[in-house]
Parts: sequence; structure tokens; C-alpha cells
Amino acid sequence: MSYTLNKQVRGSFDEVVEQTTEALSDEGFGVLCDIDVQQTLKEKLDEDFRRYQILGACNPQLAHQALEEEIQLGTLLPCNIIVYETEDNSVGVSAVDPEVLLSVVDNPELDQIATDVRNRFGHVLDELPQA
Amino acid sequence: MSYTLNKQVRGSFDEVVEQTTEALSDEGFGVLCDIDVQQTLKEKLDEDFRRYQILGACNPQLAHQALEEEIQLGTLLPCNIIVYETEDNSVGVSAVDPEVLLSVVDNPELDQIATDVRNRFGHVLDELPQA
Repeated sequence: MSYTLNKQVRGSFDEVVEQTTEALSDEGFGVLCDIDVQQTLKEKLDEDFRRYQILGACNPQLAHQALEEEIQLGTLLPCNIIVYETEDNSVGVSAVDPEVLLSVVDNPELDQIATDVRNRFGHVLDELPQA
Repeated sequence: MSYTLNKQVRGSFDEVVEQTTEALSDEGFGVLCDIDVQQTLKEKLDEDFRRYQILGACNPQLAHQALEEEIQLGTLLPCNIIVYETEDNSVGVSAVDPEVLLSVVDNPELDQIATDVRNRFGHVLDELPQA
């Protein structure tokens, strides 16, 4: 089973980052962490990498509920959605599949939260225009 | 198998955050993402939560190598170390176990990188004073 939910999206890289952030917001997720991988690898290693952004998404209610059930869950939070240039110069968006991610945690109390986040990430991808 | 490496650490919460950040730096990790969970839950939900910090750690060389092997790996990066108050008012530090985390990715090319990061996280915990 893949650990990501994926879509090829129409639009420029920057447009897709903006649309993804808005779609996350509509589903109740703030972006707590925003990493420009291309810029980071250029600064740290002087390597040229494709455009690649990691958006760390957090729904405060669900995060709070999950942390009350499993105090060490912060090692797996926030849940990421990435936006990246693909080999054919289009733009891909991938979200971590929260059900697969949380399969490493042996705590059935998290199952419903994982399913809820997965459904919301599905809605986020649905909102983005298919390439 | 647990998905975290754990230690109870001596010192105040803020001291432990600082020591953990320094120990990460000594092992080649920058902190790309620093989330104050207590503050976030207070601001977003007006909930009172324990002190809890998520440090998103990235070793640029290893991250670059891993992303070249597996383009969607950014959905699981950076690797987190958390610092949190425990029930008995001491301070706990937990790192995600990169070997367990990357078990959800079916790519044997990542095994050695996961082991390398796991060893470095072990050294980080070794550097912190046992409570």
C-alpha cells in the first residue's frame, strides 16, 4: 500500500502551493511548517534541486485529540503535503496517508482520527485542478 | 516495536530544548521546523496543554540522498524530536525511530540512510543528561 495520496495538478508551481494552502485551510488545517527544499539544499549544499515544498499541516482540534490519546505522537506531526516539480515539468501534489503513517503506532484510539485526516486530505486533492 | 527512541532528561524544559538543539547540530542536523504545541493549542483552541515542542530535524546531505532515491519522501520529512513535560513534572525527549518510520516506504535503498539517522538520534539522546 502506498504511503501517499497523489495528484498531478494544473498550474504553475507557485499557484499550486497557494491553492493547496487554501484548500488545506478550507479543511481546517493551518500550515505550521513550510520548508522550501530547493532553497534549503542550495544554501546548505550548493546543490541544484527541483522546486519542492513541504507543507506541514495541522488541524488543531484533531491534533489535540490525538496528542491526548498518544503523547509521543508529536514525533509524527504535523502531517505533510508536498508540492513538487515532476520529471515532465508538471506539478505533483502528494499527501502522506495518515492511516498508513499511524499504522506504526499501536493505538486503536487513533484510527478514527487518521481516517478523518485522510478524508480531509482527499478533499484537498479533489479541490486542485487535475493536469 | 516502538516508533520512538526515548529518554527522561535532567534540567528545565527550556534547557532541554536548547541542549537537544545543540546535540542535533553536533550530529549534522539543522532544525527546519520548530513548533510550540502548547502555544499553538492555546492560540487556536484556548486549551491549556503541557509544555511540548516539536523540533523538525534535517541533515541536508542525508535528506538530499534520500529524496534522490524516493521523491515523495518529503511527506515524511523532516524527522522529529519532541521535548515534553511528563506526568511526574520531569522532561522527556523522544525521537521518531527512522527505521520504523521508513518501514512504510517500500524502498530498500533507504535502509542505510534510516540506520544512519537512527544512530545519530541515538547519539543525540546519549548527549542529554539522564534524569
